Amino acid sequence: MAETISGAWVLQRRPSGRISKDDYKWVERRLPEPAAGQVLVRTIYLSLDPTNRIWASDMVQYMPPVELGEVMRGGTLGVVEASAHDGFSPGDIVQGMWGWQSHHLAEQGEGLTKLPSLPGVPLDAFMSVLGATGMTAYFGLLDIGKPQPGETVVVSAAAGAVGSIVGQIAKIKGCRAVGLAGSDDKCEHLTRDLGFDAAINYKTADLDAALREACPDGIDVYFENTGGPITDAVLKQVNLEARMPLCGLISHYNEFDGTNGVRGPNNYEQVLMKRVLIKGYIIIDYLDRFAEGMAEMGQWFAEGKLHYRTDIVDGLENAVDAVNRLFDGANTGKLLVRCSPEP
Amino acid sequence: MAETISGAWVLQRRPSGRISKDDYKWVERRLPEPAAGQVLVRTIYLSLDPTNRIWASDMVQYMPPVELGEVMRGGTLGVVEASAHDGFSPGDIVQGMWGWQSHHLAEQGEGLTKLPSLPGVPLDAFMSVLGATGMTAYFGLLDIGKPQPGETVVVSAAAGAVGSIVGQIAKIKGCRAVGLAGSDDKCEHLTRDLGFDAAINYKTADLDAALREACPDGIDVYFENTGGPITDAVLKQVNLEARMPLCGLISHYNEFDGTNGVRGPNNYEQVLMKRVLIKGYIIIDYLDRFAEGMAEMGQWFAEGKLHYRTDIVDGLENAVDAVNRLFDGANTGKLLVRCSPEP
Repeated sequence: MAETISGAWVLQRRPSGRISKDDYKWVERRLPEPAAGQVLVRTIYLSLDPTNRIWASDMVQYMPPVELGEVMRGGTLGVVEASAHDGFSPGDIVQGMWGWQSHHLAEQGEGLTKLPSLPGVPLDAFMSVLGATGMTAYFGLLDIGKPQPGETVVVSAAAGAVGSIVGQIAKIKGCRAVGLAGSDDKCEHLTRDLGFDAAINYKTADLDAALREACPDGIDVYFENTGGPITDAVLKQVNLEARMPLCGLISHYNEFDGTNGVRGPNNYEQVLMKRVLIKGYIIIDYLDRFAEGMAEMGQWFAEGKLHYRTDIVDGLENAVDAVNRLFDGANTGKLLVRCSPEP
Repeated sequence: MAETISGAWVLQRRPSGRISKDDYKWVERRLPEPAAGQVLVRTIYLSLDPTNRIWASDMVQYMPPVELGEVMRGGTLGVVEASAHDGFSPGDIVQGMWGWQSHHLAEQGEGLTKLPSLPGVPLDAFMSVLGATGMTAYFGLLDIGKPQPGETVVVSAAAGAVGSIVGQIAKIKGCRAVGLAGSDDKCEHLTRDLGFDAAINYKTADLDAALREACPDGIDVYFENTGGPITDAVLKQVNLEARMPLCGLISHYNEFDGTNGVRGPNNYEQVLMKRVLIKGYIIIDYLDRFAEGMAEMGQWFAEGKLHYRTDIVDGLENAVDAVNRLFDGANTGKLLVRCSPEP
């Protein structure tokens, strides 16, 4: 095997507001054949996530920011092309966080996890419902939200990768599931395809009235993906002892410039009056419980109880443009870049 | 025994901003001698609390608002003057919530609780450290804040009735206790008399710098009494998995007008980044655990580990003026009105 050319997106400037193509630079470099212990991986799927915007900023955050000059961070799935490591063979499908690059040379196979054997499961499922996204929905809703049968679960960004799974798990748990999304098409998808009991187009609805109608018994769990006016409205209708897993604040991410913080929700006094619990979490906190989550989610998936959509953009060269789809409300389901064909 | 004249403050207008004397009306009425089952109580102490401002508004809150024309709600301690009920005798000291009135005729003794027998404990302790105030500090800090030895506990309104006890319990639990208060005198009281490790005058300090100095290992528990700029600053220095018992938002109470909500803290994204837990609570949620709290707090009190101050205003006629002391930062410790002499 010859040398490999690896192309990568490198962060060269901190975004101000929306991510711009000039914030990144395309860099190519030659990778040698694997030396002893090294594993060469070709990227198939790159995960694009709202948190990309956080990593690109230099605000105080949950991991170190991506440094200027570094390859942009991102969740990845790929195939081993060549290996000089006993644990990996050409053709193995592996997951990791090697970022926005077409190829990766892993020292001692570090950071590569072979896929569990689940025959018949499409590869993109491992980058969505059965990947970190699915685990984010699973642990946030169940561990923090603790939904009880008959309760009402509201989720924002409900047509997004995490939100669409949150609503389905809520249904599995016997709850009323209500989703907020940004178009009538997305809302129809939620109720028609995913089993949500009601969906609200937050861009056109009177939020107070629509929530009252969709949640006649009030709101017991609010799965927070967005912040902003949705949260303000939800707080007016929460029940006593409501739980709010805080998974994301995507409506605010383009404000992140390292100097100004995000203002908390309006009607915050209701957190006191209704004894609400708010708990921030990041999915990496649950890494040691992934096996547990994968087992149950895999079971539900096999039983046909979990549906997922991926929004696949072809070509790593389009990654920078594609990531803004998350902030424009342009995607439904999990946003992935297909960097090279599946084997 | 003859008829009794009972004087009372009745709510006649919802406050806008600061409570004004015109929001209340002084009303007198004649109470007959107790008929069968009735108990006549003379008020000794009336508790003034930040939540009075909430009760007087018609916002959505944790109990029904006080209606216009009703006697103002409030915690009380008094002495039985006459009784036609087997369970109560003249001279019994009782607690209840009969509100801002000089006398109360309780049907069937309803709402009256006889004081536990703790010889040598001054009566005003039962309206502060060993009353609902002490329980508020105890359960909020221990049940929600869960402070661990060696952790740093920050409390706002630290010279207030609840805050001053929170800091002392934090010390008993082996934590570093840091208080924020509104004058140098109050700060000196916290460190000199109550054992706080550090105190910050939030009106004059650079909050960021002062918190950095007072909390070199970051903030693990923030006991929230105020909201406002203190909370904004605390969120910049919280540790991973910090806990924030939300007991009050006194800096915002004069905004409560039934239409506009309170805006949540700035730097709210840190709730996500640092996986912070925020939990609102109201002390009535813990009524069924008061015996447990009273036992432990009574023990600490007997051992001399808990100090308290009461700020006593004489004369029920001064109650309306006195309640604003809470919002002006004019009081240290528990604010009480002495409506009549102790027996």
